[in-house]
Amino acid sequence: MPLTRVKLRPHSRAAIAAFIAVAPLGVASPADPLPSWKDGATKFAVVAFVERVTKEGSPDFVPTAERIATFDNDGTLWAEQPVYSQAMFAFDRVRALAAQHPEWNDKEPFASVLRGDLQKALAGGERAVVELVMATHAGMTTDEFHDVVRDWMATARHPKTGRLYSAMVYQPMLELLAYLRANGFKTYIVSGGGIEFMRPWIQRVYGVPPEQVIGSSIKTRFEQRDGKPVLVRLAEVNFIDDKEGKPVAINQVIGRRPIAAFGNSDGDLQMLQWTAAGPGPRFCLLVHHTDAEREWAYDRQSPVGRLDRALDEAHARGWTIVDMKRDWKVIFPDAKG
Amino acid sequence: MPLTRVKLRPHSRAAIAAFIAVAPLGVASPADPLPSWKDGATKFAVVAFVERVTKEGSPDFVPTAERIATFDNDGTLWAEQPVYSQAMFAFDRVRALAAQHPEWNDKEPFASVLRGDLQKALAGGERAVVELVMATHAGMTTDEFHDVVRDWMATARHPKTGRLYSAMVYQPMLELLAYLRANGFKTYIVSGGGIEFMRPWIQRVYGVPPEQVIGSSIKTRFEQRDGKPVLVRLAEVNFIDDKEGKPVAINQVIGRRPIAAFGNSDGDLQMLQWTAAGPGPRFCLLVHHTDAEREWAYDRQSPVGRLDRALDEAHARGWTIVDMKRDWKVIFPDAKG
Repeated sequence: MPLTRVKLRPHSRAAIAAFIAVAPLGVASPADPLPSWKDGATKFAVVAFVERVTKEGSPDFVPTAERIATFDNDGTLWAEQPVYSQAMFAFDRVRALAAQHPEWNDKEPFASVLRGDLQKALAGGERAVVELVMATHAGMTTDEFHDVVRDWMATARHPKTGRLYSAMVYQPMLELLAYLRANGFKTYIVSGGGIEFMRPWIQRVYGVPPEQVIGSSIKTRFEQRDGKPVLVRLAEVNFIDDKEGKPVAINQVIGRRPIAAFGNSDGDLQMLQWTAAGPGPRFCLLVHHTDAEREWAYDRQSPVGRLDRALDEAHARGWTIVDMKRDWKVIFPDAKG
Repeated sequence: MPLTRVKLRPHSRAAIAAFIAVAPLGVASPADPLPSWKDGATKFAVVAFVERVTKEGSPDFVPTAERIATFDNDGTLWAEQPVYSQAMFAFDRVRALAAQHPEWNDKEPFASVLRGDLQKALAGGERAVVELVMATHAGMTTDEFHDVVRDWMATARHPKTGRLYSAMVYQPMLELLAYLRANGFKTYIVSGGGIEFMRPWIQRVYGVPPEQVIGSSIKTRFEQRDGKPVLVRLAEVNFIDDKEGKPVAINQVIGRRPIAAFGNSDGDLQMLQWTAAGPGPRFCLLVHHTDAEREWAYDRQSPVGRLDRALDEAHARGWTIVDMKRDWKVIFPDAKG
């Protein structure tokens, strides 16, 4: 069946309203819900799954309440090269806070960041990253951190493309999020990134509300300051939402198993395994970065977003794999931001 | 204005459908959304708040997405005397598992539980409680624990009333939950009780889906067992969702500040403070157990559900206080379960 003839089955009020607004009575709308996806096996697999679980009376029908879809963020919904955007944020914060920390000029990893040698700054491995994160993400209230992130997202630009980071998102995935929601899915972000680094902008950019964001976190402490309660961000890791942590967090926060999961790296493997292991119809998808020209091409050897074990398992188990170069007509939204 | 003349402003599709189904065209339904609440200041405060935040165009109007209401569970939605139901569950599990643990006959706090001396079992304080919880709540998969809780809830009966625990819920609060949801609120449980002790039954009993339950938890570990991924419950505390923990967890999971919060004890004080401190209209309510005849009467001196500091603060700040004896026509649902 040609994909242009696939009919949307709108479930949400918004979709119904839109349908009534545009379709002459009695004529089904042939609008393509995924216009940035090239017709082919990948797009067909997505649409076929959604049709299957939303067809009332079918043995594969899934009630709306159970239509949970979880999405990784870095490399799945937005670009993660040359380094995670949250690392760029941390570097910028080190520069912004340097005047208050003269000791950073002689102390790694801060000294390297201030000299612009990011590679050397990260040479200290996990310990360096934790030091950078704690120095830039902790020690203020949650409200204060919210504003810092919001302001950075409104002004910082990607080093290669010059776009705002919010314009480094994948247009085909924005369409996929909206398509799933129009079909009654609840879309969650389940990211290794910081939950409070994502929440200030993720509703505006992805249409995902704050209560549907799961991520890594540092501990917070409830305090009264001048008679006003605040939550203070502490320099202590609370939870790392990566690898085995993803199904743990999904169970903790959602309490239901997703029926569809979307990732791009080995950090998403356990989330896909957990999703696939439930009963009934399941959908697992990996975004494979194959487009060095329009985005980046990387997989098994990449220090960022390594895709190795999960790629093997996707092939072995017949999970859907997006070949970015082949499957996506466009990568980023038109507006450069 | 007599409360029976207060009109519901239904926002959800379900409420609109119900309204259309029962109301003759052009005639507003005068149905009382809170029939188990006696007319008076308490009921009026609840209805006035809901009317105020749902009136479009009014300066106090709150968009649906921000209508977050958080409810404590023990003592707020269901009875917590003579001891928390989850403690009764733990005692029953000790008895059920005793045959596999002959060593428990000589080891406290288990020996006292097996002899039926619950007071002595709890004499060991927090350490005894943790030992009882870990021995009965850990060491199995999340799926296995789900089934154990589900079966216990279907059969165990309250020691005083002989009712199923799911029939020890407060009818007026069930009506309040439904009333808020009919007015576009998202209702959350934020309980010191175990999150996986609540989820197996809370949707059926309160109409709250699993992803809107926040509670205390033990750690879980992702494992492959016979090629199937499982989450194993570990004998290690993950998070205690009580007192200062409540606003911390609300921020972590919901990422928005509630505009209404409902509790009954000092364990809820920080959640109420956090809710009250936001901008715009706010509603804080305490259930005061004043009805020794129909339920229990307790507050400042009670070892379970102590209400002392929070009662003072409620009086000082003008929060709404339910006087159970005076404000509620009935306590428990008619069906004894």
